[in-house]
Amino acid sequence: MSLPEALPEPGALYLAEIREQPAALRRLLGGRAELARIAAAAPGGLVRMVGHGSSDNAASFGVYAFGLLAGRTAIRDSISLTVYYDAKVDFAGSVVIALSQSGRTPDVLEYVTRARRQGAYTIAVTNDPQSALAQASDAVVPLCAGAEQAVAATKTYSNTLAALALLAAELGGRGDDIAAALEQGVDELERHLPLLERAAASLAVPFSSVGRMFAIGRGPEFATAREIALKLLETCQIAAEPLTATDLAHGPVAALDPLFPVWAVATDDQSLEVVVDAARRVREAGATLIASGPAAEAIEDAQYYLPVPRPADPLLAPLLSVVPGQLFAGAVARAKGLDPDRPRGLSKITLAR
Amino acid sequence: MSLPEALPEPGALYLAEIREQPAALRRLLGGRAELARIAAAAPGGLVRMVGHGSSDNAASFGVYAFGLLAGRTAIRDSISLTVYYDAKVDFAGSVVIALSQSGRTPDVLEYVTRARRQGAYTIAVTNDPQSALAQASDAVVPLCAGAEQAVAATKTYSNTLAALALLAAELGGRGDDIAAALEQGVDELERHLPLLERAAASLAVPFSSVGRMFAIGRGPEFATAREIALKLLETCQIAAEPLTATDLAHGPVAALDPLFPVWAVATDDQSLEVVVDAARRVREAGATLIASGPAAEAIEDAQYYLPVPRPADPLLAPLLSVVPGQLFAGAVARAKGLDPDRPRGLSKITLAR
Repeated sequence: MSLPEALPEPGALYLAEIREQPAALRRLLGGRAELARIAAAAPGGLVRMVGHGSSDNAASFGVYAFGLLAGRTAIRDSISLTVYYDAKVDFAGSVVIALSQSGRTPDVLEYVTRARRQGAYTIAVTNDPQSALAQASDAVVPLCAGAEQAVAATKTYSNTLAALALLAAELGGRGDDIAAALEQGVDELERHLPLLERAAASLAVPFSSVGRMFAIGRGPEFATAREIALKLLETCQIAAEPLTATDLAHGPVAALDPLFPVWAVATDDQSLEVVVDAARRVREAGATLIASGPAAEAIEDAQYYLPVPRPADPLLAPLLSVVPGQLFAGAVARAKGLDPDRPRGLSKITLAR
Repeated sequence: MSLPEALPEPGALYLAEIREQPAALRRLLGGRAELARIAAAAPGGLVRMVGHGSSDNAASFGVYAFGLLAGRTAIRDSISLTVYYDAKVDFAGSVVIALSQSGRTPDVLEYVTRARRQGAYTIAVTNDPQSALAQASDAVVPLCAGAEQAVAATKTYSNTLAALALLAAELGGRGDDIAAALEQGVDELERHLPLLERAAASLAVPFSSVGRMFAIGRGPEFATAREIALKLLETCQIAAEPLTATDLAHGPVAALDPLFPVWAVATDDQSLEVVVDAARRVREAGATLIASGPAAEAIEDAQYYLPVPRPADPLLAPLLSVVPGQLFAGAVARAKGLDPDRPRGLSKITLAR
């Protein structure tokens, strides 16, 4: 008689996948030659990114990666305009980048099919290179993240960021230096992960009764604010809303009070002053402030600090900045008695339209 | 000795400005000839809209207006990529539409200045045709909303929607029929406003203890979901997050419970089935559901219904759908003892960067 297999700890898969991120990023870097070939075949027009959830959050980063590394206008395109409304959009010369971990998101697949038929060059960025999305596209960037079992995405998110950075770098003729900066960032992340885990866990108990939060960032780190807010929503049932540091002042600041904490992502780039200003307004409103990101210490007077190491290129900071948020969400979920591996009402592959 | 002037009721300005929307829209329609002239001068490239807060919400509608009426790709462009990061974006052939009620939003002004210098055709859509933004632009669309005194925008939001619809219609050669549909929609709105006021007010007490909500919509009505969420944040201190009906299923649905109500905007277009599906998931999660929009009755089993009349063209539905949300936010604010005219921590002209 064999003993029944022990049930895993709640959140064990989620935590294991956060820890796998350095290894997953190194696997992606191993496919650089193929990324360079795909970029070389891309036409010169608008870069149209499509995806939902964490994939769409990664696309927010892509806007900056393509803009800064390649001088290209990249957009999070409207899926529904093409798929549901059948708008007569001119796709000629466009590069479509379809982001889907599973490669099975129905409306992303339909968007790619239509865009390709209308003359776009279509690239699938997916963790399943055999998926329907991969087959429907001109080119495939395999995420190489390995199987992701927790419902809340972690390593597929960071590998999507890295894939977009590398594609943009290749388009801008900066493949070598961005790949080197990425390698260095991965080493830093690996070195600091145990420390980040301990720091995030120490915040779990004070935040286990929180029901709502804002996450603010700007520039490339707006993607981080969006992704951390999504992790808090899906794993901890916290109504967390992402805002750019500037949009906070256009209304939402009025909702703040001491029971409405704000997570601020501060990074060493041209957005830092704006984020520091917004954090000051948060404190003036009496809200609890968590300062994170590589420039966390530039925010004065926060109650909590969760800094991350500085990458060699500040554009790559979102790969590091998201990790304390992933860890914090998992720790708060466990403190609330929730299982971050299997959030209520969610499935890994979202077939919702 | 003169008697001191009576202090206005809390929310009196906000409610008066909601009621002024039909008149404000008719004033905007009076400027159609100038709108047609501006559209005729616009080049054929990418339409780049920029703005914050309610202006950015209106831009979400603009994506659909330009896509559906003129077959043009219109985007909510990244302000910071140009203003803070100094990215080398190719503006030649682009149409920039800068949305700012005050015409004084600093980074929008800076964006327009740079984009114009780099070859974009720049249009300011503003309630102050003498503003710095108007002076910095090639062309000006005056919103003609009249002075807006409540901090939370209402009539400038709806006039911005209408201005975008008319510009898009002129670009697509459909100026006459969209103007006619708009006139009909304004008449319907005026007729139904007293009824909408009573219906929204009846919901205020049950919602006065709510701390968080989602607002869902898709297609052109995603703008409505965003704007209603912003009104709830700024006037009622409700942590309200806008989501597309599809994105709800990619994570956020896990946060729902009976104390987490959802406002769903249902409209008679190709997105209806998606919104109805999402509403079903909301009810399955046990959350309280408010069904609104011209197709509210297509959502089964909602606890509350706040329908609006059907406009002659479904694209114009957001002009009507936003109104119950504006009224609901004002009513809930008063039930909570807050003043929607002067939300804490906000000023009318946001000079935040």
